Amino acid sequence: MITLLTDFGTRDIYVGVMKGAIAQINPALQVVDLTHEIPPQDLFAARFNLMSAFPYFPLGTIHVAVVDPGVGGARRAIALQLQTAFLVGPDNGIFSGILEQHPAIAAVELTNPSYWRTSSPSSTFHGRDIFAPVGAHLASGVPLSALGRAIAPDSLVSLPLYPCEPTAAGTMGTVQYIDQFGNLITNIPASLVSDSCQGDKVTHSWCIQLATTTIPAATTYAAVPQGAPLALIGSHGWVEIAINGGNAQQKLGLCVGDRLKLHLSPLK
Amino acid sequence: MITLLTDFGTRDIYVGVMKGAIAQINPALQVVDLTHEIPPQDLFAARFNLMSAFPYFPLGTIHVAVVDPGVGGARRAIALQLQTAFLVGPDNGIFSGILEQHPAIAAVELTNPSYWRTSSPSSTFHGRDIFAPVGAHLASGVPLSALGRAIAPDSLVSLPLYPCEPTAAGTMGTVQYIDQFGNLITNIPASLVSDSCQGDKVTHSWCIQLATTTIPAATTYAAVPQGAPLALIGSHGWVEIAINGGNAQQKLGLCVGDRLKLHLSPLK
Amino acid sequence: MITLLTDFGTRDIYVGVMKGAIAQINPALQVVDLTHEIPPQDLFAARFNLMSAFPYFPLGTIHVAVVDPGVGGARRAIALQLQTAFLVGPDNGIFSGILEQHPAIAAVELTNPSYWRTSSPSSTFHGRDIFAPVGAHLASGVPLSALGRAIAPDSLVSLPLYPCEPTAAGTMGTVQYIDQFGNLITNIPASLVSDSCQGDKVTHSWCIQLATTTIPAATTYAAVPQGAPLALIGSHGWVEIAINGGNAQQKLGLCVGDRLKLHLSPLK
Repeated sequence: MITLLTDFGTRDIYVGVMKGAIAQINPALQVVDLTHEIPPQDLFAARFNLMSAFPYFPLGTIHVAVVDPGVGGARRAIALQLQTAFLVGPDNGIFSGILEQHPAIAAVELTNPSYWRTSSPSSTFHGRDIFAPVGAHLASGVPLSALGRAIAPDSLVSLPLYPCEPTAAGTMGTVQYIDQFGNLITNIPASLVSDSCQGDKVTHSWCIQLATTTIPAATTYAAVPQGAPLALIGSHGWVEIAINGGNAQQKLGLCVGDRLKLHLSPLK
Repeated sequence: MITLLTDFGTRDIYVGVMKGAIAQINPALQVVDLTHEIPPQDLFAARFNLMSAFPYFPLGTIHVAVVDPGVGGARRAIALQLQTAFLVGPDNGIFSGILEQHPAIAAVELTNPSYWRTSSPSSTFHGRDIFAPVGAHLASGVPLSALGRAIAPDSLVSLPLYPCEPTAAGTMGTVQYIDQFGNLITNIPASLVSDSCQGDKVTHSWCIQLATTTIPAATTYAAVPQGAPLALIGSHGWVEIAINGGNAQQKLGLCVGDRLKLHLSPLK
Repeated sequence: MITLLTDFGTRDIYVGVMKGAIAQINPALQVVDLTHEIPPQDLFAARFNLMSAFPYFPLGTIHVAVVDPGVGGARRAIALQLQTAFLVGPDNGIFSGILEQHPAIAAVELTNPSYWRTSSPSSTFHGRDIFAPVGAHLASGVPLSALGRAIAPDSLVSLPLYPCEPTAAGTMGTVQYIDQFGNLITNIPASLVSDSCQGDKVTHSWCIQLATTTIPAATTYAAVPQGAPLALIGSHGWVEIAINGGNAQQKLGLCVGDRLKLHLSPLK
């Protein structure tokens, strides 16, 4: 199984052509679209969505990701072998969310044109001419080492994100993604909040503090009035900020990278 | 074969992740997207589109539908067995268009977490953690009865729609859906109009009457001038109102739920 | 393998229903979406995208295309056999880009309702009732000749496009497509420009001349400043005009059909 994530949109045939290029190599492969509507060249959105989708795919899945502002320039094209999956795409940090949790056990730069569509790839569409064909060959049993020269996994480009960390005043976190509904997804892991229980007994209450507002925790949207903000454990496994029936990004005016604070209070 | 219909959109990876969750259970299953652009939480649009797609899928298809304003609340999660297909989703009436024509022969509430992705499902994403996995297990041969406790088919939530019915003044119908081109799809079945023939002989003419306008019947868009309205038997099997080369919703100002009248006149 | 290209959009279930109609005939067939966002009834965009996708699909692929302003009227429904593929759709010129390079070796009008979904097809949705079923039957081994009466390949409707041709002043070309990023794709083939090399030695420089501007050639977007125009060999195999980090259509105000000139200068 191959997944595709790009910023190509679905109006033009770029994605269809990548699937054709895969089928020309092996028509039996299954291809699943993650999304093709990553905002153009938004590496952070690609990083977040790849990391979020990763746990939900079968062992051995090959994730091909093409958000590639440097296409045709000096950035490396890479394939990575992890314990449970393969990654194929440009070396620009889009995989770094996955790699923080699932380190690469082998990495190659895609220098062997035998596994490309053509030895003269288009300078603007490596998705079709390099990444999709390499993904199809990997999925068909070609070993990683055949695809090019080995590189050190610690030489890969990484995308920094302000970390979630404890401070004297509470745990500081960051907005790492805003979904299409305007929900603000932080980098505060659910475990920090669900650890505020012992067995079934809740030992702490929690809330999220912004500069001028405190957002209460709730377990469902419906637990707060229509139009009110809430903090909850989102389906991605992170603390999220949402508005019941509304758009938190618009209402609260936050952006990716903005900081916020988790506040835990022991229950008496 | 599994179909998916949601209001998740295609910008985020929600749909891709549902497909991954299915593939983790059984990578050989085929998944077809009906649409993921149901307007957010629009149960009537989901109801209409499910009903319209139903006849066009193979025997044994499993339709997984997730338009779920009550996710995480008290609404039941259900799976239904019909004569020719299975339905999986929230118990909020989205299947009631199908069920009016194809009654359930067995129904269960999804109370058995063995067939979920996890026994602690996300409170906001039952599509990934309950509905997609249950669909994949059903498609892989798990019997309906294993999925949870049996419930009475007549206990299912239904979505009311003002019926198409004869009156002294003519047959009253309702706009039940407006498609992306602005075509107004009524709940007047094609049979009421095609019964106005005997064999190949047309015995009646017909038209649709709105408050202040009469819309003539035609068999193709091209039969009326550019910009003019027409009533025709649409591809969904209902009487539709369209504008040749234009948008009937915008031009006529009608909404879902608006009433209109079918007028049949015997031909001399 | 069957590909689908339509102007149906993805909001309604039209495309899903075509896939269901295919699966009812043969659930083992693989279906790939080229795009469903061809601007409504834009035959030139359909023509360009079909031509561009064609080389990237396996031998024997069946391309079903439904951009069909004349549906229900007098236009013919056709299936074509080429050396390496089949084409199914309306006879309105959408395949003429493919056919210029890959002539049909046999053509039929789809007059045999045995291979339709129903002998009374909807007058507005031949995609579901005729084209998708015929594609599925072809993919399942039904011979072309069974689908209807043979017609002469040279009787097919063709869509004219002002050709790329040499003049005293230089090679005149035409904008043939504008992609979703606003890149202007001309009908000047890459070969005219790459022939300006001998081996690895570049023998000519080149640029594109508009009425009041000259656009320099470059090999990557990044080779010109942010916001500056460039001409390059696009991934489709044609000379394209783009803006680094911007939208060439908006900045330069060009439309499909507009003419431009390729200028080659020998290098000393």
